[in-house]
Amino acid sequence: MRDVAIIGVGMTRFGELWDRSFREIGIEAGFQALVDAKLSSGDIGAMYFGNMASGSLIDQEQIAPLIVDYAGLAGHHLPAVRVEGGGASGALALHQGYLAVASGQYDFVVVGGAEKLTDVPDTDANRVADSTADHEWEVVFGATLPALWAMAARRHMHDHGTTREQLASVAVHAHEMGAKNPNAHYRNRLTIDQVLHAPPVAEPLGLLDCAPLSDGAAAVVLGPLERARKFTDTPIRVAASQVATDTMALQHRRDLTSLDSTVVAAKRAFAQARQNPEDVDVAEINDAYTISALIALEDLGLAAKGQAGRLYAEGHFSPGQTLVVNPSGGLKAQGRPFGAVGIAQAVEIVRQLRGRAEDRQIPGASLGLTHDVGGTGATSVVHLLERVD
Amino acid sequence: MRDVAIIGVGMTRFGELWDRSFREIGIEAGFQALVDAKLSSGDIGAMYFGNMASGSLIDQEQIAPLIVDYAGLAGHHLPAVRVEGGGASGALALHQGYLAVASGQYDFVVVGGAEKLTDVPDTDANRVADSTADHEWEVVFGATLPALWAMAARRHMHDHGTTREQLASVAVHAHEMGAKNPNAHYRNRLTIDQVLHAPPVAEPLGLLDCAPLSDGAAAVVLGPLERARKFTDTPIRVAASQVATDTMALQHRRDLTSLDSTVVAAKRAFAQARQNPEDVDVAEINDAYTISALIALEDLGLAAKGQAGRLYAEGHFSPGQTLVVNPSGGLKAQGRPFGAVGIAQAVEIVRQLRGRAEDRQIPGASLGLTHDVGGTGATSVVHLLERVD
Repeated sequence: MRDVAIIGVGMTRFGELWDRSFREIGIEAGFQALVDAKLSSGDIGAMYFGNMASGSLIDQEQIAPLIVDYAGLAGHHLPAVRVEGGGASGALALHQGYLAVASGQYDFVVVGGAEKLTDVPDTDANRVADSTADHEWEVVFGATLPALWAMAARRHMHDHGTTREQLASVAVHAHEMGAKNPNAHYRNRLTIDQVLHAPPVAEPLGLLDCAPLSDGAAAVVLGPLERARKFTDTPIRVAASQVATDTMALQHRRDLTSLDSTVVAAKRAFAQARQNPEDVDVAEINDAYTISALIALEDLGLAAKGQAGRLYAEGHFSPGQTLVVNPSGGLKAQGRPFGAVGIAQAVEIVRQLRGRAEDRQIPGASLGLTHDVGGTGATSVVHLLERVD
Repeated sequence: MRDVAIIGVGMTRFGELWDRSFREIGIEAGFQALVDAKLSSGDIGAMYFGNMASGSLIDQEQIAPLIVDYAGLAGHHLPAVRVEGGGASGALALHQGYLAVASGQYDFVVVGGAEKLTDVPDTDANRVADSTADHEWEVVFGATLPALWAMAARRHMHDHGTTREQLASVAVHAHEMGAKNPNAHYRNRLTIDQVLHAPPVAEPLGLLDCAPLSDGAAAVVLGPLERARKFTDTPIRVAASQVATDTMALQHRRDLTSLDSTVVAAKRAFAQARQNPEDVDVAEINDAYTISALIALEDLGLAAKGQAGRLYAEGHFSPGQTLVVNPSGGLKAQGRPFGAVGIAQAVEIVRQLRGRAEDRQIPGASLGLTHDVGGTGATSVVHLLERVD
């Protein structure tokens, strides 16, 4: 397999983008990434696109060629493929782009992701979010995605003594980070008290424990590492790209407080990269719900089992610490446009590793991790990205 | 890149499978392919799944891990990825499986595809079919998929003298072939007269010019060619796997009577395989509408421009001829469960090249082609498969 590098990144602002269509945000992110990579469209061999809900929400399938078309590039007849795995769609598309370059069939590949969730009725947007759970064994009985995660939170509190305040500290941290991110959906700061007293969604989770549904798009350009120096002074090597799955329904899981898909994907990723969790300087992880972040850090090996809540509350994942978590603001503050999330995580890590993350810069970051999850963890995707000196 | 072979195939019957769920048909095809490959589930490194409409029709996303789960294999935590490109979803999944093995990251990969279209309201099934056209520039103005293909038919008749009878001969041929296929949705024979006098759908296309919407699933197992002989006496090499795209909307095309995505994908495929169209013994092509088959044969280089209708009517693509087209019955008779179509095409070609296609066997077939199309050709996928002696 060839070594693969990320040589360009781009993203739109995340939030309520009612003035721009799905197509427009898709190409905005793509063109930013192409310009950043100093490539022209003719250099691109293929395009992968992460998206979950365009079929359900806007009656539009085949959106990968649609985005290429709207970008004015139909004349190149690029291979363009949509990839879907719920909220992990973006990271899955990145995995496919990685394999496409690693295989040798394609040299330079654009991987994009986009979602438009705020200009449809909330009931429709929530329906598509719930469609990432098991429809026949969970959703038809009234389970929703936050309700399922709330069960995991209850169990985590019961088994590990995690507190409501510790959960709230995840949201407070996310908004603290998001406040410095011009692309973030939310840039306001929160207090523990505000999170604790927000309207309940599925107890113990309140409104401010839940990441928003957002509009947004992100894109990266991949290429063979051996040729990357021609295009950038700071190629970022994809040291690992790993996917793992698990049962769809929570009731079939070994443990409600752990996602085996994340445990396995992380193990595979650290083995592929020949690195250890202790080596990670910066991580963009799934914090779709505050409990999701605690479970993620424990499953990734970035916190001991049952300790992530305490560590979060004590500020162990904030700037200045050994490991900084979600400097972008994460899904909670930067936003959660499903298909774009996994790509936006990579965009943030690349900016951090390049030393160009502006106000959010983590000094000397050299190894970064991204972690993207579909639904309640039927799919997890872990990437390790490293600076090449 | 490593050479990749197909070492196992399986499929369900296509048709109205009201007694079996989406999950059930998905795993039936997959297990058949595993048994055929003489592999156990523990040997599999990843799974790709082609599907178009599960989100829209049954509110279920993340169906790739869902199928793995329902097969009882969640404990393997397989990477499982859904791929979508309208009616080309299955062939796109095959392309991803091919790249995954070629890259060296995975050794043995299952590629499946499934769709359930007959046990939902017809209006819903037709809406999802239309969602493969350009929603904003075609569908909202009343265009449907058959109406768009009907425009291509009118133009083909105008430019090349293609007749209504020649179009009808495509359907007659398909049903003649399907009559010998135990998996076919339709096994009845048709006459030209029946096709000409069927109720109009979008003139000049009548009901019998249009492939049905079907339920069904198909699967193949891929592996490195160098290891394939351990598992099968008749490994089938994937000599080429190529994807090309084009504009979504017909009005932006160079020529209504040609799909540039097919022209380009075919050129790339013949170049990759170092073969010529004349070398193809058997082809499974897109005959979603009778006109689609004529355009496909011309674009693939298997018939001179404007001649495919005459050649079809004269029986040039029937058993006994140099090139046999759609021995399975094609989409028209074998059926059209979108995400399964491209995989089922590969299943038929593999059976032909192995010499195990029973009543449908084409003696001595050594090079086969599959051609799968999304919508009106925004996506085309061409595979060349060859017997390895």
